[in-house]
Amino acid sequence: MNIQSKVKESIAQNRDHYTRILQDWVRDVTLSGQEYEHQQKVCELYKSIDLTTDFWEVDYQSICEHRLFNSPRQDFHGSPNVVGTWKGEGGGRSLILNGHVDVVPEGDHDQWDDHPYSGNIIDGCLFGRGVTDMKGGNLASFIAVKTLKDLGIRLKGDVILQSVIEEEAGGAGTLAALERGYLADAAIIPEPTEQIIFPRQQGSRWFRLKVAGIQAHGGTRYEGVSALEKSVTVIEAVQRLEKERNERLNDPLYKNVPIPLPINLGRIEGGDWPSSVPDEVVLEGRLGVGPAETVENAEQEFEAAMAALGEVDSWFKDHPVIVEWFGACWQPGGIDLENPLFQMLTNSFEAVHKQMPKVKASPWGTDGGLMTQYGIPSLVFGPGITRLAHHPNEHIRLDDVFSVAEIMALTIVDWCELSVE
Amino acid sequence: MNIQSKVKESIAQNRDHYTRILQDWVRDVTLSGQEYEHQQKVCELYKSIDLTTDFWEVDYQSICEHRLFNSPRQDFHGSPNVVGTWKGEGGGRSLILNGHVDVVPEGDHDQWDDHPYSGNIIDGCLFGRGVTDMKGGNLASFIAVKTLKDLGIRLKGDVILQSVIEEEAGGAGTLAALERGYLADAAIIPEPTEQIIFPRQQGSRWFRLKVAGIQAHGGTRYEGVSALEKSVTVIEAVQRLEKERNERLNDPLYKNVPIPLPINLGRIEGGDWPSSVPDEVVLEGRLGVGPAETVENAEQEFEAAMAALGEVDSWFKDHPVIVEWFGACWQPGGIDLENPLFQMLTNSFEAVHKQMPKVKASPWGTDGGLMTQYGIPSLVFGPGITRLAHHPNEHIRLDDVFSVAEIMALTIVDWCELSVE
Repeated sequence: MNIQSKVKESIAQNRDHYTRILQDWVRDVTLSGQEYEHQQKVCELYKSIDLTTDFWEVDYQSICEHRLFNSPRQDFHGSPNVVGTWKGEGGGRSLILNGHVDVVPEGDHDQWDDHPYSGNIIDGCLFGRGVTDMKGGNLASFIAVKTLKDLGIRLKGDVILQSVIEEEAGGAGTLAALERGYLADAAIIPEPTEQIIFPRQQGSRWFRLKVAGIQAHGGTRYEGVSALEKSVTVIEAVQRLEKERNERLNDPLYKNVPIPLPINLGRIEGGDWPSSVPDEVVLEGRLGVGPAETVENAEQEFEAAMAALGEVDSWFKDHPVIVEWFGACWQPGGIDLENPLFQMLTNSFEAVHKQMPKVKASPWGTDGGLMTQYGIPSLVFGPGITRLAHHPNEHIRLDDVFSVAEIMALTIVDWCELSVE
Repeated sequence: MNIQSKVKESIAQNRDHYTRILQDWVRDVTLSGQEYEHQQKVCELYKSIDLTTDFWEVDYQSICEHRLFNSPRQDFHGSPNVVGTWKGEGGGRSLILNGHVDVVPEGDHDQWDDHPYSGNIIDGCLFGRGVTDMKGGNLASFIAVKTLKDLGIRLKGDVILQSVIEEEAGGAGTLAALERGYLADAAIIPEPTEQIIFPRQQGSRWFRLKVAGIQAHGGTRYEGVSALEKSVTVIEAVQRLEKERNERLNDPLYKNVPIPLPINLGRIEGGDWPSSVPDEVVLEGRLGVGPAETVENAEQEFEAAMAALGEVDSWFKDHPVIVEWFGACWQPGGIDLENPLFQMLTNSFEAVHKQMPKVKASPWGTDGGLMTQYGIPSLVFGPGITRLAHHPNEHIRLDDVFSVAEIMALTIVDWCELSVE
């Protein structure tokens, strides 16, 4: 029996056991700041398969000054990271399997058909906040490693399981793991991609624009300057910049994406009285950042476009648009399509599903962006259902969890290589 | 001694008395709902010069269904109107002198150099909320009538002093006076024009526009439709309509006004998250209404322009902009320049000031718009300082009050005609 068959058989034999673990995990309400007990369980599981474990609370002071640090929190007590390392025998490539345990709030319970943390199974789907994003993926990573260990397989390279906090708020958990020295030759992050391979992940940066005007009574509006009318010029400049940035891309993975790197204007607010000329309009939005650029470069290009508005309308020479960067920031990430990990994952997918995987560029960021910043090529590939992340009635197909686990196990063997001494 | 000299002398002799009345009036805090005692005083003054007085609380039920009714209140208890009629001997033209007693809130006291209702006099200026808008004008009307009566003058036509409530919130007081039968052949309203004659008064109507979109994640914004981008099309349509409406005007009084009938967009709000595509944007603004049109016509033209947006962008065919009319409404008003009252007022001004008056179209509405709706040609001309209305440190030059009183007295004599039996 070849390895694939053995892996499949082992997973099949343990389906009920694994399903119960996922039910248990989903019932842990791991909102930001409430991850402690869940991470203890994860740590025990890692120990149960003889991984070298590291359980630590992220130290705010030692990380808050880092240029990639991004979090609304000022204290990570009660929010530990867990890393479990399967040390290889040497001479092979190492691989990180990274997943976050924090979940977003479940929102209005009335929008859920069942309790948001039920863990109930209906028609092969397991329900609950966080099961798609991304405890199902985390379980797939664990199953892959456990299965290989159960089968007595020995690898040349290390496999590093990272169970991290704070992805939803900007990646402080993964950053802390990287800073603690948990690096590798590549990473797979089983976020909910519905088994589509994402070798490109769009980063993003939130901005706030303040457009100035001069107040006046509406009946003599020509005595003022409308910040709202000036905002139209700003909106058009944002649209032009988006067009320029996307025309420049020639990555074939973006061929069929209408706007690979969108600049979204998500909020506008200005003026306070129908019959006054508004003297300020505030726009807020999200700047998509491409895998081939840095957040800093994208910010600079955006700021330059706003600074250049004075050439379109001299008003902006004396009243430049104020650009603020705020809130979350996701680093863009990705992997070179020439990297053997991409081919290995594709091959494993084909071996399991008897068809080629879909390959896409992701329109959102993951902790893979932080990995990429540390020189670790990262792929996003997981079992969850994309559209259900952050939504009521979030669930996952259990079959997908197990097939992703199988694909991961085969990919690990290919990448880290069997030790045949 | 001719009448003008007698009027001038009488006013001069009574300056201190009149000044004390104005101080007393300013110290009455006549915010909306608090006019009772002040109107009692006004009524006593009217009686003191033998006017036929009418003091009544406006009945909400009998007026609230009127097509010109506009007020946030649902009860006018404690807010009486006062009318004082000087009945003519017959055969002459009648004249209304209309003024409101309600004042807008004084706002932050820290922005005032003195108490907002001080009535203090500094360098010939009397200070306090409401003195410019428009108790100073009201006093000028009263002085004009009292002076003529003191001089024993008898007129052919009636003079009707109207001391009304609720102008600031839409004119319910004047509407009630008109409905009660207090009509005339013309009206003068001494709102704060700095002695500029306004034979045209811009009306206005507040509107709210709701622009629809389809929500989506900012990273895949092409899957949604941005209500913010669609709003740019709406803003441009509003600008086009404003241009069309103003190009159509060929009133010489508007010759030097950059935008005689502005459409002001005063507020915008839409979207709730930087990285979501906004599915609704709300715009609020003020539609200027010309003296030669009705509010209804202007509304219809505006609605038609919004309905026609489907021809610019087919999105609006299925998602038409929703137009709501809300809040205050001022009727446009005015008087034909051929009307003898205009020439008489001009002559009286010249006789008093030895120079020609400035004549302008007003960019805001007054209760004169309601008069015009009742077929009463109305002129706005008063002593207050326009820019100080609704502002901290509101004040009036006492000299202006008295010269306006003199001009009014002469105009009354010309318009209502001396009875020489």
